Parts: sequence; structure tokens; C-alpha cells
Amino acid sequence: MSLTSDSLNSPISLTNNNMKAKQLSVFLENKSGRLTEVTTELGKAGINLSAMSIADNSDFGILRCIVSEPEKAYDVLKAAGFAVKLTDVIALNCPNTSGALAVVLQYLSDSGVFIEYLYSFAAGNIAHIVIRPTDLDACEKILEAKKVDLIAANDLYKL
Amino acid sequence: MSLTSDSLNSPISLTNNNMKAKQLSVFLENKSGRLTEVTTELGKAGINLSAMSIADNSDFGILRCIVSEPEKAYDVLKAAGFAVKLTDVIALNCPNTSGALAVVLQYLSDSGVFIEYLYSFAAGNIAHIVIRPTDLDACEKILEAKKVDLIAANDLYKL
Amino acid sequence: MSLTSDSLNSPISLTNNNMKAKQLSVFLENKSGRLTEVTTELGKAGINLSAMSIADNSDFGILRCIVSEPEKAYDVLKAAGFAVKLTDVIALNCPNTSGALAVVLQYLSDSGVFIEYLYSFAAGNIAHIVIRPTDLDACEKILEAKKVDLIAANDLYKL
Amino acid sequence: MSLTSDSLNSPISLTNNNMKAKQLSVFLENKSGRLTEVTTELGKAGINLSAMSIADNSDFGILRCIVSEPEKAYDVLKAAGFAVKLTDVIALNCPNTSGALAVVLQYLSDSGVFIEYLYSFAAGNIAHIVIRPTDLDACEKILEAKKVDLIAANDLYKL
Repeated sequence: MSLTSDSLNSPISLTNNNMKAKQLSVFLENKSGRLTEVTTELGKAGINLSAMSIADNSDFGILRCIVSEPEKAYDVLKAAGFAVKLTDVIALNCPNTSGALAVVLQYLSDSGVFIEYLYSFAAGNIAHIVIRPTDLDACEKILEAKKVDLIAANDLYKL
Repeated sequence: MSLTSDSLNSPISLTNNNMKAKQLSVFLENKSGRLTEVTTELGKAGINLSAMSIADNSDFGILRCIVSEPEKAYDVLKAAGFAVKLTDVIALNCPNTSGALAVVLQYLSDSGVFIEYLYSFAAGNIAHIVIRPTDLDACEKILEAKKVDLIAANDLYKL
Repeated sequence: MSLTSDSLNSPISLTNNNMKAKQLSVFLENKSGRLTEVTTELGKAGINLSAMSIADNSDFGILRCIVSEPEKAYDVLKAAGFAVKLTDVIALNCPNTSGALAVVLQYLSDSGVFIEYLYSFAAGNIAHIVIRPTDLDACEKILEAKKVDLIAANDLYKL
Repeated sequence: MSLTSDSLNSPISLTNNNMKAKQLSVFLENKSGRLTEVTTELGKAGINLSAMSIADNSDFGILRCIVSEPEKAYDVLKAAGFAVKLTDVIALNCPNTSGALAVVLQYLSDSGVFIEYLYSFAAGNIAHIVIRPTDLDACEKILEAKKVDLIAANDLYKL
């Protein structure tokens, strides 16, 4: 995360630099057709997808995604008849080297914070990681104390 | 995908430039502690994680991941007592713009190929997308015919 | 399954005695509150639940259930704002003895029919089993040829 | 639940009449073949399946089941190379009438106890319901106070 001068001067920017990002979850009654529709609807609304992960079962899928404008995406998909939900998550950058994530996860489990799920992708020297922990506030506090490179919500949306 | 001179000269490299990548799946009896163990074991073996996604339920998680050396990772985790499995997936690059993924998904659904699950992360101007389709061969053929920028297994492992 | 004289005389009854039952799936944005609402809505409509199983993840649940009147339940829940879907399943009775189900499953896997999921409960000397196979027609044909005691949809709804 | 004279006289029986039952969870690397193996192994060991539910995704399944002898089943499957786990659940009988389950669920949600997942099957006038709540002790206390007909572990195993 890089704090810009803007973000230091205004309450709005500070909110935008909140470390809790909004993840959008969308129920896909059928995994394939509905996913095409979701991406089409978001595309028409000019909303970009920074990260996606599908929690699937045999009949259905649940798309979890990070989008450029979560509230707008929520409204667009709701209006198009989708069952949607916003969930808080925490994102971080981790060196893209073997064992680096293990260190971060150890910080959390040492403090009794557990991971419900995560998704992650490497990009050059770093890996972007989205975490849904059991306790968001504790997770944020621990990772900040350990100087882990958290990604502000605002920056995550623009990846 | 960038074919190196090596890959043009040897059968081994050609295999490595296969478009079907090996995804490693690992059963996590408890989501948090076991995930730390997996990343620790892989770290000790010098294996890097390019992409991760956890398919979770209330009690368990299943880690799906792309690693630098899938077969070695399989052996390392098997030896450490984990239930593991290798699954073929297809990865592609997509412009990181709203609506671009919808076009790719439409190619597939128009041809009767469906998505079981996917995970994806943007990186600057592009988004890396890992797909598990209902039909791998058809998926590969369709995306190649449509000139979609597939990521060779070898390149995906090194992200 | 017991064919009544009625069922032998009318096309409607024959349909009702179809071996493919309608399973109702309902998306639960939050597992607990929404489940109470579903059961309340069905209760108000006089619809009974014969069997239930929740496919859950950390944030959500998907209720799969067998109800006394599937189409009516679909309409009631749709009107109440739920994302719902009907899926064909096959139900059977199996002796409630160790190993009996293994025999049935072996018939299916020997013929290349696989189980997506199932749920089951013993009741005295028998166990009721609901199966979602990869191939419904083949599943029905194999189990009938092996004289497995299939449960007609109509009877399953009234359990 | 019916306390037998035996159960009133010995500490062992009292333990057996505990309201927290042991659910066995088994990881199925492939849903169909492995399920046949699990049921075959349990059958060979003379262990009966009272209730089953599969939490599935596209590649895998997790079998949750109630068996006649949970610890023995755990050992048998562990020895056969399966990833297994025991989890506490609570079982209850509910009148098999529309709306009856909604009342029970309302008791729980009114007290802040939530359902992670459940599975259930009707049998004549009653429905047997297995619940995995967020708080087992609170769940048990609330349901007992409300005179809900809990099923003792010992009785559930013998269904």
C-alpha cells in the first residue's frame, strides 16, 4: 500500500484506504452460463474484475470477486436478478518466494486467527493474497504489527 | 506464452510447453493449521506458489494451487501425510479491462464447453485466469482457434 | 415402490410414479437465518420436508431438499425472493445393513455411472437414499435391471 | 431418546447417552470410486451407516456420516488410507409436519446459535435431524430447555 498525499488529507480518502475490502459474492445457479452473464453485466457497467475465485459444487457455483466498484457491482447484479452479497476481506502483498506465505499464516495462527478461505496470484516479485479470516479486526491488527504489506481496499479494487 | 529456443529443440521442453497445466489439490482437515503446514512444507522444498484458491466448507478446505514443480510438490505433501491430487487445468491471459473475460467465456459456452470453476487475478494490463473446463481438449482447441493468449504450463508454474 | 391400481390406469399417475424425483435447491445467503425463513415459508404453505442436506461453505449454504410438493415449493420460495432451482435425483431403498449400499454403488461404478452427491438416512430395516448421478437415465436403468428397490417420486415426496 | 435402565446405572452408559454424537468425515478424492470403497470397508468391518451426506465440489467430495461405531470406523478407514476426522454434532427428532423444523431453528437463532449445516430424513411421523451448530453446548442447552426431543448419540448410532 502506498499512501498518497491525498489519502492523508481527507476523511474520504482515509476511508478508501481502509484495509478491509469488500468482496462481492454472486450465486451462480448454473456455473457456466451465469458466469458469462455476470462478466457481461459487469463489463457493460464498466466494472473491472481484479480477482475471482469460484467456490463450486456439482450443481452450483458461488463467485467470489474483487471488483473496481463493489457497491455499484452489487446494484447492477441485484437489478439483473442475481443473488449477491458483500463480505469484508483483507488483502496483502507477500514476497513471491517459497515459504513467504507460511510466515504470514504462522503469525495469524499463533494469535488464534484462522483462515476461512483465501485466493492468491503471483505477479512478478510479489503475490497478491485475499484472505477471509475468522476475525477481521484481529487479523488486520496482527498483520500491521508484523509490518506485513497490507493492500488498501482502494488499491485492491484498481489492481 | 513465449517459446524459447530450448523448447523448440527438445521433446521435454515441448512437453513443458503443453497448454494443460497440473493443478495440485490438497485436502485441509482444518483450514487454518493445515494451510500453514502446506505452505511450510512447500517452502522447505523450495517450491513456489503461483496461484491459490481454497474451496471451503464449514469444517474443511481444499486448496487448489499452481506450484513451480507440481510432481515434486505432490511427492513432498504425500510424504508429509496429506491427501493430494493432480488435476489438469488451462490458464490464459486476458486483457484487464471490463468485459474482456465475458468474451472468452462466451466462446466456450457457444461451443458447449462449461466452466467447473476458475480463479483469476489481475496484474497490470492483463489478468491471469486458471480454468477447469468440462472438456479440456475442446477448451484448448476453441481458445487457440479464437487466438486467446493461452499460458503454457511451464510459464504458469514460473509466474 | 408400490404401484397402486391408480398409477396403472392414468398417465398422470404414471408421471407421478416416475423414478426421477425433483430435488429443490435453495441458496442461503446466510446459513442460519435464511434456513429458518425457508422452513417457515414452506410451513406456512403446508409443504413438508422429507429430506434435507446442506452443501455449505464458510459464508453460504445451499439447501438441497425433497419436499411434498416441489413445484409449489419452488413458486413459494421464488415469490419470497429466494434463488431456487429444481434438479432431478433418484431415490432408493437399501437394506439397513453394513455393506448393502456398497453393493448398489458397485453396480453403478461398474457401469460407468458416478455419484455427484447423495444423502441418506436409515429408518428401521431400510435406508432411504437420494442420489444425484452423472447420468440419470443410465442410473435408473441399471438399478432397475439389478432389482434395486427404487422409490417413486410420488412416494418419496410423502415420506 | 429412551434411557434404558442400563444407561442409568453405569458411567459408561451415561457417556453413551451423551447428546453430542460423533460424525465421521471422509475425504473422497474422487466422489464415486472412493465412496464405494468407504462403504465396502465399513461393510467388511460390520459397521452400519445411519445417515450420510456428501458435501461436494466439482472434483471432490467429503462424506459426512453417522455410523454404528464411530471410533472403529475412524480406525478402519485411516488404516485403509483415507483422510478422516471426527466432528461433534447434535441430533434431534422433530414432528414430520410442515413448519415443525422452523420452530426448532427459531429457538436457536433467537439465542444466537447458528447452523453450519444439517441433514435430515423423515421416517413416518418424525424426522431425524443432524445439526452442526456454531456452539454445541449452547445448542444442546437451548434445545433441552425447550423440551426438543434430542437423540442420544448411542441411539443415533443404532438408527
